[in-house]
Amino acid sequence: MGEFELIRQYFTATSYPTDVLLGVGDDAAVLAVPPGERLVAAVDTIVEGVHFPVGSPAADIAWRALAVNLSDMAAMGATPRWFTLSLCLPQARTAWLTEFATTLDELARQFGVSLVGGDTVRGPLNVSIQILGTVENNRWLTRSGAHVGDVVYVSGMPGEAAGGLQLLLKPAISANAADRQHLIARFTRPSPRVALGRGLRSLANAAMDVSDGLLTDLSKLCAASQVGARLHLDALPMSPSLSSTFGMKEAEHHVLHGGDDYELLFTIAPDRVQELEHCIKSCGVLCTAIGEIVPQGGVQCYRAGQPVTVAGTGFDHFADVPAPNPGGE
Amino acid sequence: MGEFELIRQYFTATSYPTDVLLGVGDDAAVLAVPPGERLVAAVDTIVEGVHFPVGSPAADIAWRALAVNLSDMAAMGATPRWFTLSLCLPQARTAWLTEFATTLDELARQFGVSLVGGDTVRGPLNVSIQILGTVENNRWLTRSGAHVGDVVYVSGMPGEAAGGLQLLLKPAISANAADRQHLIARFTRPSPRVALGRGLRSLANAAMDVSDGLLTDLSKLCAASQVGARLHLDALPMSPSLSSTFGMKEAEHHVLHGGDDYELLFTIAPDRVQELEHCIKSCGVLCTAIGEIVPQGGVQCYRAGQPVTVAGTGFDHFADVPAPNPGGE
Repeated sequence: MGEFELIRQYFTATSYPTDVLLGVGDDAAVLAVPPGERLVAAVDTIVEGVHFPVGSPAADIAWRALAVNLSDMAAMGATPRWFTLSLCLPQARTAWLTEFATTLDELARQFGVSLVGGDTVRGPLNVSIQILGTVENNRWLTRSGAHVGDVVYVSGMPGEAAGGLQLLLKPAISANAADRQHLIARFTRPSPRVALGRGLRSLANAAMDVSDGLLTDLSKLCAASQVGARLHLDALPMSPSLSSTFGMKEAEHHVLHGGDDYELLFTIAPDRVQELEHCIKSCGVLCTAIGEIVPQGGVQCYRAGQPVTVAGTGFDHFADVPAPNPGGE
Repeated sequence: MGEFELIRQYFTATSYPTDVLLGVGDDAAVLAVPPGERLVAAVDTIVEGVHFPVGSPAADIAWRALAVNLSDMAAMGATPRWFTLSLCLPQARTAWLTEFATTLDELARQFGVSLVGGDTVRGPLNVSIQILGTVENNRWLTRSGAHVGDVVYVSGMPGEAAGGLQLLLKPAISANAADRQHLIARFTRPSPRVALGRGLRSLANAAMDVSDGLLTDLSKLCAASQVGARLHLDALPMSPSLSSTFGMKEAEHHVLHGGDDYELLFTIAPDRVQELEHCIKSCGVLCTAIGEIVPQGGVQCYRAGQPVTVAGTGFDHFADVPAPNPGGE
């Protein structure tokens, strides 16, 4: 099967929504941005052996590649609409492609996004997705809008994905079957918080997704907003599967530094917390208040009301040496 | 230097045009599509050892990565506006990144496009650019609009880039210094035909860029338009540098099958050829009539008025066996 036949067979939709004026098959796609909305664009790339273990199932790779991009739309409060796919493969195997395309399509349908273009090349396994969404004018969320006094929230159970990755990489770690399955699924099938992001766009002052670890990403949000934060370790959501498998100390490390959950980290004015509770209920996603925004000083962790230093750092592909602990002394 | 510092240092613009509402540094960019225009999106990826020789200068890699994407905008008649960059690098070397970023910025400025987002990951060298442009409603060009009777045109001197690549790969091929320099530059620094594409959007019935070889791409245009074409070999534009270096026979092979020129292939109604001449003059790009659209039969080559068979094929990353010659018997 040649490249063009491959693309035609696996990645050409039989029908498109009306906002796709020209889909896969020409030099580019033509798309209709709804009147009064702005275009939101992001790209995220995943590489074998870096972002997922060598030999991961094609279905998990497809899921992750699209999910991490949907998560970027969630972080902006945008409605994801379209995406392009750059797929670099060492070889074109029918079984692999079928599994990849089927799962990609499944997740795309779940979130109402259309694959509108792509490039398929031969080389080391590398999946790059560019996602395009739209948001009402002046309603997008940013990292830079946090105000002093805001409450800091995180969605879901950060750290579960990092625990799942540990279990995948070190099968000898003992865990009960249900915890093992749950944690691994959190790594292999992250849930983009798109509905939550849409709900937050008129509530939150700042938002981002947690892709490099809660502590690292909260530091980035603070830097972008030119503020500091207090993070209450006692308040962190703690996954029972995570703590029972790894013990409290290692579990807390995963919560603070695990980078693969794609949960939302956001800040909100205290007088809007009640509205937030309604939003959380309608989205069905757990959100936990974990700290507050202060004028300066980076991120300072607290335990039992006392400032403490925590070890470790987030993930940085090109760090020559471990980055300084953003919350540490 | 860490990943985030690297991105900040090399890929963050100090200022953006007014259509970039939020640039590099958040989870996504926010962009303003002009009222009455449609969004045009494409992605093209280049991989070391596949699309460019191993060890190519960073400047040439940057140029090619963006130029091939600008060419997709040209083929649609679109105005390129923004792009995102996914850069997968085995290591972060300052000299390499400086050279890459400088040339990327140079070409971006030349075409008025802004880098608005990206992802930098560690892995085998792979550069994926997603380009975004806009075009007036219902004015975009496609591959599928060719009509029977249309004249087939190609811009520039296709084959020069393929000749340049041969000279790069086999330095022992004898060529005079000026021809060598010229042909290699056509490979390393292709010129996206954006102004021509813009001019064609109200003139041409069909257009595409030549990325996989003139004969292969004309076959694709015919298939998309459900027509055939006669291609007059005697009419092909022949680069003097190409013919004097490779001889007429091999030069013609490069013209028909060379895949790296990123010239435009387009068809136009005979009664609009005079308007086209004005457009060509104002763009300053050579365009040559090389054939005509017929009802069916794929692409048939002619020499001295007689149908002939030509050998060879275009480039297909995943072809297990050479594809059948689209113009052959």
